[in-house]
Amino acid sequence: MSFPGKIAILGGGTWATALAKIMLNHEKHINWYMRRPEQIQDFKKTGHNPSYLSTVEFNLDRISFYSNITQVVEDSDTLILAVPSPFLKSHLDKLTTKISDKFIISAIKGIIPPENLLVTDYLTQFYDIPVENMAIVGGPCHAEEIALERLTYPTIACPDIEKAHAIAGIFNNRFVRASVSNDVSGIELAAVLKNVYAIASGICHGLKYGDNFQAVLVSNAISEMERFVDIVSPIERRIQDSAYLGDLLVTCYSSFSRNRTFGSMIGKGYSVKAAQIEMEMIAEGYYGTKCIREMNEKYNVNIPIADLVYRVLYENASAREGVKVLREQILK
Amino acid sequence: MSFPGKIAILGGGTWATALAKIMLNHEKHINWYMRRPEQIQDFKKTGHNPSYLSTVEFNLDRISFYSNITQVVEDSDTLILAVPSPFLKSHLDKLTTKISDKFIISAIKGIIPPENLLVTDYLTQFYDIPVENMAIVGGPCHAEEIALERLTYPTIACPDIEKAHAIAGIFNNRFVRASVSNDVSGIELAAVLKNVYAIASGICHGLKYGDNFQAVLVSNAISEMERFVDIVSPIERRIQDSAYLGDLLVTCYSSFSRNRTFGSMIGKGYSVKAAQIEMEMIAEGYYGTKCIREMNEKYNVNIPIADLVYRVLYENASAREGVKVLREQILK
Repeated sequence: MSFPGKIAILGGGTWATALAKIMLNHEKHINWYMRRPEQIQDFKKTGHNPSYLSTVEFNLDRISFYSNITQVVEDSDTLILAVPSPFLKSHLDKLTTKISDKFIISAIKGIIPPENLLVTDYLTQFYDIPVENMAIVGGPCHAEEIALERLTYPTIACPDIEKAHAIAGIFNNRFVRASVSNDVSGIELAAVLKNVYAIASGICHGLKYGDNFQAVLVSNAISEMERFVDIVSPIERRIQDSAYLGDLLVTCYSSFSRNRTFGSMIGKGYSVKAAQIEMEMIAEGYYGTKCIREMNEKYNVNIPIADLVYRVLYENASAREGVKVLREQILK
Repeated sequence: MSFPGKIAILGGGTWATALAKIMLNHEKHINWYMRRPEQIQDFKKTGHNPSYLSTVEFNLDRISFYSNITQVVEDSDTLILAVPSPFLKSHLDKLTTKISDKFIISAIKGIIPPENLLVTDYLTQFYDIPVENMAIVGGPCHAEEIALERLTYPTIACPDIEKAHAIAGIFNNRFVRASVSNDVSGIELAAVLKNVYAIASGICHGLKYGDNFQAVLVSNAISEMERFVDIVSPIERRIQDSAYLGDLLVTCYSSFSRNRTFGSMIGKGYSVKAAQIEMEMIAEGYYGTKCIREMNEKYNVNIPIADLVYRVLYENASAREGVKVLREQILK
């Protein structure tokens, strides 16, 4: 295998499109897989992704499109995964070639249901990919801002720190400054949890709690995140680093955050179903909430904010009453 | 001295008005000092503070107003200080009675220039007030939200934790949940620093940096705050608690933050003077920035974000160029 060699993006959504834009700042040519041939046709007609970040224009000569996952894997050395976590399995199920000799960069911020495994753990267990051949992309990276070329600091985590540096080198350009880390699991978990807390933040916003309260909620959320991540993946880390705290902040405070918007609708009284229909997409944190809950059956960490979000989304609990308990007994 | 006994508010601004509102939820009657007799006259005519938080109506029968500081001190047991830090000395200079037998609650978020002392240190050194008879109010507390009765979580710090609990008891009501701490100096310093970082955050916003960048800036700011506070006042603390991180978040992210607004004008190209005139008030962080800089001449802590704000505000440095250095060499 050549490293990083030929790069492929897997996924046709907002985040995949932002990653393609980043990659094409460094690479002359990339491979790009998206499931639906119609999307590829429309992309080729218009020169941009027809459905997502459509302001970003691409030079089509520098992209080979694929709707066949086996083909794209065979033609590439490094695969950047950017499909929603609940759909990764259905994509990989279609593979008829091995991927164990590829380098994998997971840009998926989510856990794989129903096994509730982190993406890297899932790939190791089911596809025999060595841990040192996997990296993840973490940190505060709203795709919409990358489209606008606003300066962004992702974190590339890999157990092999030399490889993390090499990947960071491909990411870096005039609007991207990538850091490196070896805390793969911690940053993956933080990326899942932050969506859950963004839903909580949105719920409280929808219930008309103010900025003072939000600041206390987020302060409590980062401590809750630290407790959970330190138990599940006990290595030395500084939770206030941008891969953890920064990612939480951008998700809880940015108007680009879909999870916060989803929570806000719940707080305003929409049913979960109605909020999902209204948003025309399912916020990733919806799945993350369930996965964290089930994961925590093993670890039993005290995570009252995540528990509240679970009860509201999956057990029809009253958001208003739940936040009341939180605000009286938990937050400080 | 009776503790807490008769309570007085010292100050006539936004924060003093919010504190008066809080106190009157628990106390039948308070004393309230404001420097200008005309302000008191107008207050008595209208039933509200004529200049600040004027939507908050007060029952005048429950307030004794004073424009004579000696008189209010003589008539009170617990003094809540809520004047801007640069003006505290000029108020206290007029005192012709001792205050060393009073209990002092400093709600001032600032350092006393030119000595660059924390308020509690200043009061100990110049007014012989025993440390166990002083408390401070920290945490995310935008006065405008208290006026709206939005749920708020201040932290009351006092070396005597029993007294901290007693003060918290006076603060608590249907929209206030007070926590306690013994980290007086740390929380005072955090309250000064957060205004400096809010100016930095505003500067970057004014320069059109986006949400991804802001999240990284704030993550770096909380680490910088931790470094500084741990060196200046080395006791065990969790920097992600709401008295530190929460206060930083509300100041950096809230639209009510005057320091952020001030910084944003600087980032957009206003001169310091023009921004101050336009705002019709001087953001507290303007003084705090200078005090921290001078204080750090003794400690030499690595605080590049605060240093940048100092150079922009006091040395006419280019905000654009300063942030460029920060973004390339410092942030991660």
